[in-house]
Amino acid sequence: MRIAIVGAGALGLYYGALLQRNGHDLHFLLRRDFDAITRDGLKIFSIHGDFTLPQVQGYRQAKEIGAVDLVLVGLKTFANDHYAELITPLIGERTQILTLQNGLGNEETLAELFGAERIIGGVAFLCANRGAPGEVHHLGEGRIVLGEYQPGGQWRLDRLVEIFSKSGVDCRATGDLKRARWEKLVWNIPFNGLCALLQQPVNLLLAPKSSRRLVRELMLEVIAAANAQGLTHPIAESYAERMLEFTDNMGEYKPSMQIDRAEGRQLEIAAIFAAPLDYGRRKGVAMPRVEMLATLLEQATR
Amino acid sequence: MRIAIVGAGALGLYYGALLQRNGHDLHFLLRRDFDAITRDGLKIFSIHGDFTLPQVQGYRQAKEIGAVDLVLVGLKTFANDHYAELITPLIGERTQILTLQNGLGNEETLAELFGAERIIGGVAFLCANRGAPGEVHHLGEGRIVLGEYQPGGQWRLDRLVEIFSKSGVDCRATGDLKRARWEKLVWNIPFNGLCALLQQPVNLLLAPKSSRRLVRELMLEVIAAANAQGLTHPIAESYAERMLEFTDNMGEYKPSMQIDRAEGRQLEIAAIFAAPLDYGRRKGVAMPRVEMLATLLEQATR
Repeated sequence: MRIAIVGAGALGLYYGALLQRNGHDLHFLLRRDFDAITRDGLKIFSIHGDFTLPQVQGYRQAKEIGAVDLVLVGLKTFANDHYAELITPLIGERTQILTLQNGLGNEETLAELFGAERIIGGVAFLCANRGAPGEVHHLGEGRIVLGEYQPGGQWRLDRLVEIFSKSGVDCRATGDLKRARWEKLVWNIPFNGLCALLQQPVNLLLAPKSSRRLVRELMLEVIAAANAQGLTHPIAESYAERMLEFTDNMGEYKPSMQIDRAEGRQLEIAAIFAAPLDYGRRKGVAMPRVEMLATLLEQATR
Repeated sequence: MRIAIVGAGALGLYYGALLQRNGHDLHFLLRRDFDAITRDGLKIFSIHGDFTLPQVQGYRQAKEIGAVDLVLVGLKTFANDHYAELITPLIGERTQILTLQNGLGNEETLAELFGAERIIGGVAFLCANRGAPGEVHHLGEGRIVLGEYQPGGQWRLDRLVEIFSKSGVDCRATGDLKRARWEKLVWNIPFNGLCALLQQPVNLLLAPKSSRRLVRELMLEVIAAANAQGLTHPIAESYAERMLEFTDNMGEYKPSMQIDRAEGRQLEIAAIFAAPLDYGRRKGVAMPRVEMLATLLEQATR
């Protein structure tokens, strides 16, 4: 399969490397890592075993790649206004677009630009960071849940699941992409938000009763907003407990937003906070703590 | 009047200096500034005019002072567990105790230790910081509102109001000390809390719509909790607007808690946050944002 990676951060590079290692024809749109990767290849340091791709097809501009079968979008969401410029040259008659980006609203914007029938959404549960140029550090997880943006097309999903699975990714399809997105937000909103604001890893946040309770209250606000969106199956409140226990096992993990803030990079506040707040508001769900966290993050990074 | 100052921070030193300048017999319990003040005196740099008291009676221990007519308490509230040790040696038959400390719960604790009939509460609206040892910088305001802890004793209040007024302090008596305390919290909770958390002065906090709205929402939670305490006259919601406009005129003022956190000092979270939250909770008033702010402050300074 001819695949282009748009947004070659830790996520795009990691999944792209796994797909290339499995024999697919990968094309990476690169910026920061262009020189290092086209000269020395791509190095993955992974809990599942390190590997290097000595030869990687890297590009500075999408038009040098041309049409592909699949565009895998791993952009930070604040770069979504570059969708048209970055993706249009990659579109052929049957090109599919898979977004593994964070938050809400990405499929909607892609669908408006390129047609809803092309769009597949994916929720990635991946702990990975970029290291030096040409290096990715895969620290944990890696699971992907895929869903169609519009109903139908199950065969297409099955094929993508097979491709990812054979490449070594724990991948499954869901009939309720919306629910999968919101489930990820139940984790992302409290942990990315609070760890970025306080500059503390997850274990420090979960140790005292008071901040652990705050994490749980934020989760319950997200669950309430999710369940107001007409999910096929609502998210149970017990999902919050499961996520707390799951995170207890992550040690002193730093969520990506914490690292981004520490390194002075822009944060994905619109997709991870503003869009869910907007979805909640439209359904009349009060999310005072999520709103306050978004305001504090904006204010702290102004 | 023979007066002892217990808790000689910016507030204690400032009001003590004004009272001494007006001819009262002042005795300062000192720690950090003992050497500088007993050697060189006390320098007040004030928007109302600078002045120096070349001779100041400073002490390291309360028993060296002995009984006084009035104890003025300016301690940081986290030092309240030293009340007995610091104040007991100052108590004579007719000694009155005036606390100008922040937050809730100070009069109650003093009343338990020394008898409710001795206790007068005061709410000080003062912008002042300590500078080098022996120096106080008075930046703005200075108003004091005094109230009896238990009903009666208006003559006593009138006399204190007269003493402060003649010493150059804008001072008045209130029949509803509780309301005055809560009114100050309407300002203290959002501004001390958010400025300390974000390390931003009040003008940065008030500039963007979103954080200005958050300040207002915090104020409304405090007003709701206040009005559940059986005040003689409830605090109107419009008081929040007045405090916002009042603060707009303060420029890039840094609340004391912001400075305390920047300098690594302990914060008055118990008196300014935990106690009001507790009062609100007992009356069934939801204060999600105030509670979240308290949790974030605790967590940030852990």
